[in-house]
Amino acid sequence: MTHQLYIYNTIHRKKELFIPANPPFAGLYACGPTVYGDAHLGHARQAVTFDVLFRVLSHLGYKVRYVRNITDVGHLENDADEGEDKIAKKARLEQLEPMEVVQHYMNAYHRNMDELGVLRPGIEPRASGHIIEQQDLVRRILKAGYAYEVNGSVYFDVEKYAADHSYGKLSGRKTEDLLSNTRTLDGQSEKKSPLDFALWKKAEPQHIMRWPSEWSDGFPGWHLECSAMSTKYLGETIDIHGGGMDLLFPHHECEIAQNVAGYGHESVRYWMHNNMITINGQKMGRSLGNFITLDELFSGNHKLLKQAFDPMTIRFFILQAHYRSTLDFSSDALAASEKGLQRLFAAMALLEKMETSSSGVVNAVELEEKCVAAMLDDLNTPLIISALFDGARTINSLHEKRIAIDQENLDLLKKIYHTFVFDVLGLQPTGSMGADDTLTADLVNYILNLRLAAKARKDFETSDQIRDTLQQMGITVKDRKDGFDWEITNK
Amino acid sequence: MTHQLYIYNTIHRKKELFIPANPPFAGLYACGPTVYGDAHLGHARQAVTFDVLFRVLSHLGYKVRYVRNITDVGHLENDADEGEDKIAKKARLEQLEPMEVVQHYMNAYHRNMDELGVLRPGIEPRASGHIIEQQDLVRRILKAGYAYEVNGSVYFDVEKYAADHSYGKLSGRKTEDLLSNTRTLDGQSEKKSPLDFALWKKAEPQHIMRWPSEWSDGFPGWHLECSAMSTKYLGETIDIHGGGMDLLFPHHECEIAQNVAGYGHESVRYWMHNNMITINGQKMGRSLGNFITLDELFSGNHKLLKQAFDPMTIRFFILQAHYRSTLDFSSDALAASEKGLQRLFAAMALLEKMETSSSGVVNAVELEEKCVAAMLDDLNTPLIISALFDGARTINSLHEKRIAIDQENLDLLKKIYHTFVFDVLGLQPTGSMGADDTLTADLVNYILNLRLAAKARKDFETSDQIRDTLQQMGITVKDRKDGFDWEITNK
Repeated sequence: MTHQLYIYNTIHRKKELFIPANPPFAGLYACGPTVYGDAHLGHARQAVTFDVLFRVLSHLGYKVRYVRNITDVGHLENDADEGEDKIAKKARLEQLEPMEVVQHYMNAYHRNMDELGVLRPGIEPRASGHIIEQQDLVRRILKAGYAYEVNGSVYFDVEKYAADHSYGKLSGRKTEDLLSNTRTLDGQSEKKSPLDFALWKKAEPQHIMRWPSEWSDGFPGWHLECSAMSTKYLGETIDIHGGGMDLLFPHHECEIAQNVAGYGHESVRYWMHNNMITINGQKMGRSLGNFITLDELFSGNHKLLKQAFDPMTIRFFILQAHYRSTLDFSSDALAASEKGLQRLFAAMALLEKMETSSSGVVNAVELEEKCVAAMLDDLNTPLIISALFDGARTINSLHEKRIAIDQENLDLLKKIYHTFVFDVLGLQPTGSMGADDTLTADLVNYILNLRLAAKARKDFETSDQIRDTLQQMGITVKDRKDGFDWEITNK
Repeated sequence: MTHQLYIYNTIHRKKELFIPANPPFAGLYACGPTVYGDAHLGHARQAVTFDVLFRVLSHLGYKVRYVRNITDVGHLENDADEGEDKIAKKARLEQLEPMEVVQHYMNAYHRNMDELGVLRPGIEPRASGHIIEQQDLVRRILKAGYAYEVNGSVYFDVEKYAADHSYGKLSGRKTEDLLSNTRTLDGQSEKKSPLDFALWKKAEPQHIMRWPSEWSDGFPGWHLECSAMSTKYLGETIDIHGGGMDLLFPHHECEIAQNVAGYGHESVRYWMHNNMITINGQKMGRSLGNFITLDELFSGNHKLLKQAFDPMTIRFFILQAHYRSTLDFSSDALAASEKGLQRLFAAMALLEKMETSSSGVVNAVELEEKCVAAMLDDLNTPLIISALFDGARTINSLHEKRIAIDQENLDLLKKIYHTFVFDVLGLQPTGSMGADDTLTADLVNYILNLRLAAKARKDFETSDQIRDTLQQMGITVKDRKDGFDWEITNK
């Protein structure tokens, strides 16, 4: 690996050269979904971001062990330690066994991610499947003196930890400020301080998801699973831990505290966080009525949408912003992405039937250098896409025979598009973008040849009628000197 | 539920009226795969069998809780208690973490089952995710006196159990015969009797998959997971437990013994077993060189295959035999199924554009009664299919206007085909069978209208050329008095 991949390490607040602990292996842990509802744009952005990272690391030659968890227990409402378990509540409302809720939304998440071209992680551990490992970590933290038991629940003692270690180093928050911003505990709370968080919660009698322990029949706290499962599958040194910026505090901050308390040291070498999505400039939220699920985007079935969008359009839209920038969603912005992606695939289709000259003016090496540099600069996908659009303009000029290209540069050009569009960005032509339905393409070409024959016998009525009929079917015909071009412009 | 669904209960060796313990709920537990290799025809048959059962129960109005497990630890080579864990061995050979092997083959299994139209179970528990529940059952069995600990491993005491209970009641085997057919234990074995089986195995030092317990750091025995997980998700009374006949002994026999020993009673009310698949009359096995994976079937990439087969053809082939009969596979038999399925879908397509008369001779009620009776008679899918083929002949006669049908019977006919083909048998037109690609259909129809126009202007050269060109593309045209018919005969 002779690359110079720089990634922004949230904990040091700067871009750093990526050097894994044990090359050629690279360990990647990304936070997965809490499976109690349909996946939305926020899930898509997080998954696509770390999918691109996974693809880049693999492309650079690393053997990547990629772990992404499924939170199927322990995530309480409002992300705090009070209230009902999100999954148990959903199960109660829908009169199902909690694991039926988990299975339903996990399957739906997988389907959505497959549609978005997100590669499956190598290991996908579930919180409910790793109770023993989480209980082991609770014992370690208790033994180290950074947790206490009350009424069968175990809490992490943040103030004690903060006295010995740096609590807040990832998020930059200070315990004093956190305390002054927190409601004081009411008399009911078992916690010593409002900053403390649950490692193990005693289950209420009606709580279905529960496991025995020396403290109580209960369930693990939300932050615990990621510390326990990342350590189980990646060891006590983890190259990269990723997640959405909304997880930075308290989730990842608590993970660091748990690892330091339980294993005696921090585990993660590079922390990476993707930024959030806004909807027409607003925060996305169920209560704001601007909450759009992926299925709604793919079907167009939502009041904020003017049309349905192909999953690849959503992916392309996400990649057109750098993962650390906020990304504002609107139906119009997506429609623009759709057009852009069609342009990109149209250029790639032209590339396949391009003719070469003995010499040419196109220098593909420059394009490759631009794409590689953008990829290595903290996964700058918008810069890669902009370079590929520059290339598309060159391809169109070549197609119109205004400039020429030699074989060597054409081969390199094809390789660049295949590598960056398919392998690195993970885009695939689908639906209206793809001409990979060969039978359809054969039929259209044959009809257009029949049209050429009609023209040749001066039957212009038939010729025009063929063009109009295809247009009605959503196929736009462009006449050319030497024949015709066509594209499917409407599904 | 006023139906009379009879299913063959293996344990009573006869067909019995299905009455669930707690209607309208029905609990179904089906054994899932050990995920250490690609899914093959045997996996397909078992999954399709219980998928049809799930569909029939749902169709009859039951709220079905359907649980199918994933065995991701504890299944040792040769299905006995000696040798390496199948998954750990695969991981060692492929230099992966065992859970990477599990994830890879689990994803592949899900993909294959989706392709076959097998619905996902409501809950899909993994053995490695239920160690606590399995340890709890070991403790219960130890407490009941039907297990013993040796060197950190715990074994089920079959002879002691057989003295108090009926061991072998499911499989009809007797302990005396089993003993005389078993190699005597060598001096190395920890077991008191060769019939005993492991509930908990102490892990060898190099064994990666291990969990702490009061007996040893180890892992659960293979049979244990199904007892523990079926009880966790379906309770101590389980309506139906299904699996392949290869699992009847020892797996299901041991499950019964575990449940009786641990919970004090048998749990399963109806045991159902699907028969095996043979390949050209021979048992299927890796060592016999006739082992065909589903991916090989779908791609045609195997020396025993003359072509690729659509997953729906495989599903149809499986359903053409009753689940309790052996099913002999051959490339020719599959090719025949493919043709049969195309015929069925062709008839359904005709049904959609059928014209009615004010009166007719077709009585659809008879067909419906035949299909319902076959479904209720122990899921007699071949009889359902045969009735649907009879109906297809009627549909062809209607299409050729040799007989007539009134609106009421046409509506019922459509309903019968939709219900039984789509909902109950779970078949869907795909690839060459479906005319659901509307653009393709529009294009073909348009070309054939151009051909009619060519004929009208006596341009028979063009007319013939169009027919021949379409034939080359795999589209067969049939001229009719009043126009044309066509079908895609080759993908």
